[in-house]
Amino acid sequence: MCSIKFFAVCSLVGLVILLPINYDGVKEVRDKSYSTMDSFTISNVPRGSRRLWVHFACLCFISFYGMYLLYKEYKEISIRRMQQLQSLNRRPDRFTVVVREIPLCLQHKAYDCCVDHFFAKHYPNTYYSYQMVYNTEDLDELMDQTKSLERKIEDLKETSMARKHKNKIFVVDFSQLQTSKLGLLEEKLHALCHKIHQLQCKDMLKKKELPVAFVTFKSRSAALVASQLQQHSHPLLWVTELAPEPRDVSWRSLRVSYRVVPLYRLGVVIAALLLTVFFAIPVTAVQGIAKYEKLKKWFPPAMAVQFIPGLSSIVTGYLPSVVLKGFIYVVPFAMFAMAKVAGCVAKSKEEIKACNMVFYFLVGNVFVVSVLSGSLLDIIGKFISHPKIIPSELATAVSAQADFLVTYILTDGLSGFSLEVLQPGLLIWDILKSCTLGSQREKSPYLYSLPYFRIIPFVSLSILIGLVYAVVAPLLLPFLIVYFSLGYVVYINQIQDVYETTYETCGQYWPHIHGYILLAIILMQITMIGLFGLKLKPAASISTIPLLLFTLMFNEYCKMRFLPYFHHHSLKDAAENDELDEKCDQLDSVFYENTINAYCPPSLRPVCFAASESSSTPLVSS
Amino acid sequence: MCSIKFFAVCSLVGLVILLPINYDGVKEVRDKSYSTMDSFTISNVPRGSRRLWVHFACLCFISFYGMYLLYKEYKEISIRRMQQLQSLNRRPDRFTVVVREIPLCLQHKAYDCCVDHFFAKHYPNTYYSYQMVYNTEDLDELMDQTKSLERKIEDLKETSMARKHKNKIFVVDFSQLQTSKLGLLEEKLHALCHKIHQLQCKDMLKKKELPVAFVTFKSRSAALVASQLQQHSHPLLWVTELAPEPRDVSWRSLRVSYRVVPLYRLGVVIAALLLTVFFAIPVTAVQGIAKYEKLKKWFPPAMAVQFIPGLSSIVTGYLPSVVLKGFIYVVPFAMFAMAKVAGCVAKSKEEIKACNMVFYFLVGNVFVVSVLSGSLLDIIGKFISHPKIIPSELATAVSAQADFLVTYILTDGLSGFSLEVLQPGLLIWDILKSCTLGSQREKSPYLYSLPYFRIIPFVSLSILIGLVYAVVAPLLLPFLIVYFSLGYVVYINQIQDVYETTYETCGQYWPHIHGYILLAIILMQITMIGLFGLKLKPAASISTIPLLLFTLMFNEYCKMRFLPYFHHHSLKDAAENDELDEKCDQLDSVFYENTINAYCPPSLRPVCFAASESSSTPLVSS
Repeated sequence: MCSIKFFAVCSLVGLVILLPINYDGVKEVRDKSYSTMDSFTISNVPRGSRRLWVHFACLCFISFYGMYLLYKEYKEISIRRMQQLQSLNRRPDRFTVVVREIPLCLQHKAYDCCVDHFFAKHYPNTYYSYQMVYNTEDLDELMDQTKSLERKIEDLKETSMARKHKNKIFVVDFSQLQTSKLGLLEEKLHALCHKIHQLQCKDMLKKKELPVAFVTFKSRSAALVASQLQQHSHPLLWVTELAPEPRDVSWRSLRVSYRVVPLYRLGVVIAALLLTVFFAIPVTAVQGIAKYEKLKKWFPPAMAVQFIPGLSSIVTGYLPSVVLKGFIYVVPFAMFAMAKVAGCVAKSKEEIKACNMVFYFLVGNVFVVSVLSGSLLDIIGKFISHPKIIPSELATAVSAQADFLVTYILTDGLSGFSLEVLQPGLLIWDILKSCTLGSQREKSPYLYSLPYFRIIPFVSLSILIGLVYAVVAPLLLPFLIVYFSLGYVVYINQIQDVYETTYETCGQYWPHIHGYILLAIILMQITMIGLFGLKLKPAASISTIPLLLFTLMFNEYCKMRFLPYFHHHSLKDAAENDELDEKCDQLDSVFYENTINAYCPPSLRPVCFAASESSSTPLVSS
Repeated sequence: MCSIKFFAVCSLVGLVILLPINYDGVKEVRDKSYSTMDSFTISNVPRGSRRLWVHFACLCFISFYGMYLLYKEYKEISIRRMQQLQSLNRRPDRFTVVVREIPLCLQHKAYDCCVDHFFAKHYPNTYYSYQMVYNTEDLDELMDQTKSLERKIEDLKETSMARKHKNKIFVVDFSQLQTSKLGLLEEKLHALCHKIHQLQCKDMLKKKELPVAFVTFKSRSAALVASQLQQHSHPLLWVTELAPEPRDVSWRSLRVSYRVVPLYRLGVVIAALLLTVFFAIPVTAVQGIAKYEKLKKWFPPAMAVQFIPGLSSIVTGYLPSVVLKGFIYVVPFAMFAMAKVAGCVAKSKEEIKACNMVFYFLVGNVFVVSVLSGSLLDIIGKFISHPKIIPSELATAVSAQADFLVTYILTDGLSGFSLEVLQPGLLIWDILKSCTLGSQREKSPYLYSLPYFRIIPFVSLSILIGLVYAVVAPLLLPFLIVYFSLGYVVYINQIQDVYETTYETCGQYWPHIHGYILLAIILMQITMIGLFGLKLKPAASISTIPLLLFTLMFNEYCKMRFLPYFHHHSLKDAAENDELDEKCDQLDSVFYENTINAYCPPSLRPVCFAASESSSTPLVSS
């Protein structure tokens, strides 16, 4: 849902950008005398020309219209989020709080009694129950083993049934072999289940308690109070926050102690920074190895390419680009893997983190590197030691690289979207799996969630390129509109028919996308400051600075005005919903039981031997 | 209380610094062969010498020991703050919340009914009452007039009484004159009181309602919940925070709409920045005018100076320095005046803001300018365009200016502390007042609160100088210890005997002072990075960088660990106090009435004609 809205904004922004194109286009055509038609960039405007003020006016128009649209969109998304939250107001996460850093009860050497005491004492009327979190790595493993065993048994059963139907001659001999195998497997499964049952019993679990619990309250407002207030005077004890959706909980991250989370986060930021800055090194290394001449030496069958005329030149030409593309394709997944380590409570937050890291990676390694040509480390070093040259350097480089970026957007658009429709990664993965593991009929082979962290950064990068070139070389914009329209069509299809919703963030991505677009506007303004400076129009250059400051203030205002919608729920809404429920008397003990059971870790749910379907549905735990 | 603790830390830090002095001193004496005894700075150590590692070890030791002390102090102050808050837990501000941006009730065209509805609905069991805030500028003025009239009447009465006692001859004639004057004044006062009474009536006040109210709850925990939660889904409506102490409320700032507060704050920051950067301009201008030769032209009596031998040279020599000192003396008050505009709810927050601005002003205009010689604007410009040269520039300049800063600390210490004891500003002010307004016997002429914003920045600056020079020129440190000891003695006296406590912040200044000291440590490390670079010891220079990063991480950790103590109260403490009160049954309706009346604006308190003393004591309002 968020993505659809996002693309709507993209096309709107596209429309915004259309206006100055036409205008600038007409202007440029009129000034044919000095500018050749084949390059529409601002670099053809003579230095110190008065017509640069038209560019300045365009810049102001685009900035203000962009900000107006951002404001409108932020407002609409906030309202939509409110409506969505209202419609989901009986979800268990509205009643539940995740508590970390629970102190150890010295009497019982356990955490759970502490939780019960604390909340029963301080929320006497509203506290309902709690669910401890356990360190269940071994159980998880056993569960996985059980599942694969169950699948094998089922496969065996089905194949034997099929053969029985087909030919009844060899049945006796073969079925004996089958049944003996089946019996062995079933015995193994039985032993596993027994072991799991043993591990799931209370005494065993008590040893694996983590200082983390999900605490359920009888009302939304009580959960809200518990989540937002500092519980204990020691700020690092009883740290609370609203629980994520049950299916969105990142059980792995809950094992990390809250006190070391900042260190983990710092580590992830440093790792992402290193990957961004030194990304060029492995790419050039692989590009060096993957030269056709070298390939021939190491892998003689590659010689075959030579015999097809023309193919060898295509291979030598495209191989480095394919290598680069391959590396960039892998980056989002690498970033996502890193974000998983950062200790976020919810999977959705991990994805948002990955999304941010990928976006800045792309800005660094695609935009900055391709525009300013040179290694990112050199560029950063240069900019840090001489920050004053940023605008002029950017301006020079940007006006020179327009053609290249048109190509980039076209190829990326066509290849990216067609790849998105074809899903080659999943196809290859599926083929590989079926080749190695044999023909397993999976029940739901393609149901994955939309990988926001892979899509949003690329589209945001296109917006950034579009905005930076909106005034400099408006001819780039029609290509962008085609790109966005295509993207809109493709993703509407993908969202509706291909991907499955695994959790609902209710528009949590928007503030980040808003940030990306604002960064694009700021980058456009910095480029124009440099460009006006290069064009010997210092008055325009200086007039752009207030515009830049206004943009920054707009950002602050948006944060103040809208960000709370995305971070907090308001007490009024919670209280009103509570009241409504009380009137209707809809919240009975069954509802609360379901709520607390929804936060039962997946590995603690009961396993039912020989009933594979039921094992995947959540059951009421002991 | 905070200040005493602060000076204790200062002397502790002084002791820390003593160690490397002795060590370095011995080292320097041992190395007499190449270093002259009269300069103990690091600049005498030969380039690339191995003994620079000793300096590096000292740097590490000072950094770590400083951080250890900071940590210990932060912890102790947090605990003290908790104790202090515990002892003050029946203060009205623990039960009261200030609400801003109340929406207008469309039915009654008023704000007050809205407040009552909202809180009665959402806090049905705990809401007690509210006190609206009114725009009472005219009332304030009338109140001032009343007070001065009352004082005049009292003076007249007293003088006539005194004369009656002294000589009884002219009594008849004179007393008639007196009584007629007295009658006139009393009539005037009566009219004023009548007018005030009229303005204070409910109908008149209703027109002046502001969308601000103080809301009192029956329990601390309810006030805490109301202050920290977002009340309405619109984040800019029903903005709540815990109320400051009644005597600490800044009534003027409450008139400013919450939505424009960020603009006001930005304005104040910009103004403070301009004052800091362009401070040199008025100073040099006045210094130019205040030359003795020019003074002689404009103000001939100044010629008299020439007749006293030697005095003229003192005047010409010290006049520029006096002008500079005078300007610097005025800066804290200017900053305080600016901070008052920033729209803080509490006066204490205004002072803290002023304190911050003055500190950064001093770092810029005393430390940076005197060390790096040149105008601040030039220095900033240079550093922005070439940030890489900061460490080496700083290192060169710092090691050259040690003597100057010793002089600065000595003169500033002696003059500053002696001026503090003498209180010349207040004396002159008092003399001026008594000269112009006649001999008015004020009841409490000298009772002012400790001007933290004037003292803390100067002492923090000395810490900064001490830390920067701790490794570079340790001979400066004994002077600093003398300075801090003197300061400790002076301020212990001033706090105990001279100043009055007008409000209690419970150590709210500490996080800021912690920040100043950490800035000093960071500056020391940056200087040493540059110095090791200059001394051709790049290994030591690079090894300092992890130390710098560690310092930054320490700062983040302190923020996470201790800052919540200073910003939030914990629910557990509030609930426990509530419970205790409930058991003792100490909170009756009189207590709540007093609580809500404590937040009655001073101009709305009833005026009692001809009873001047009682008008200043808070009475129960209608």
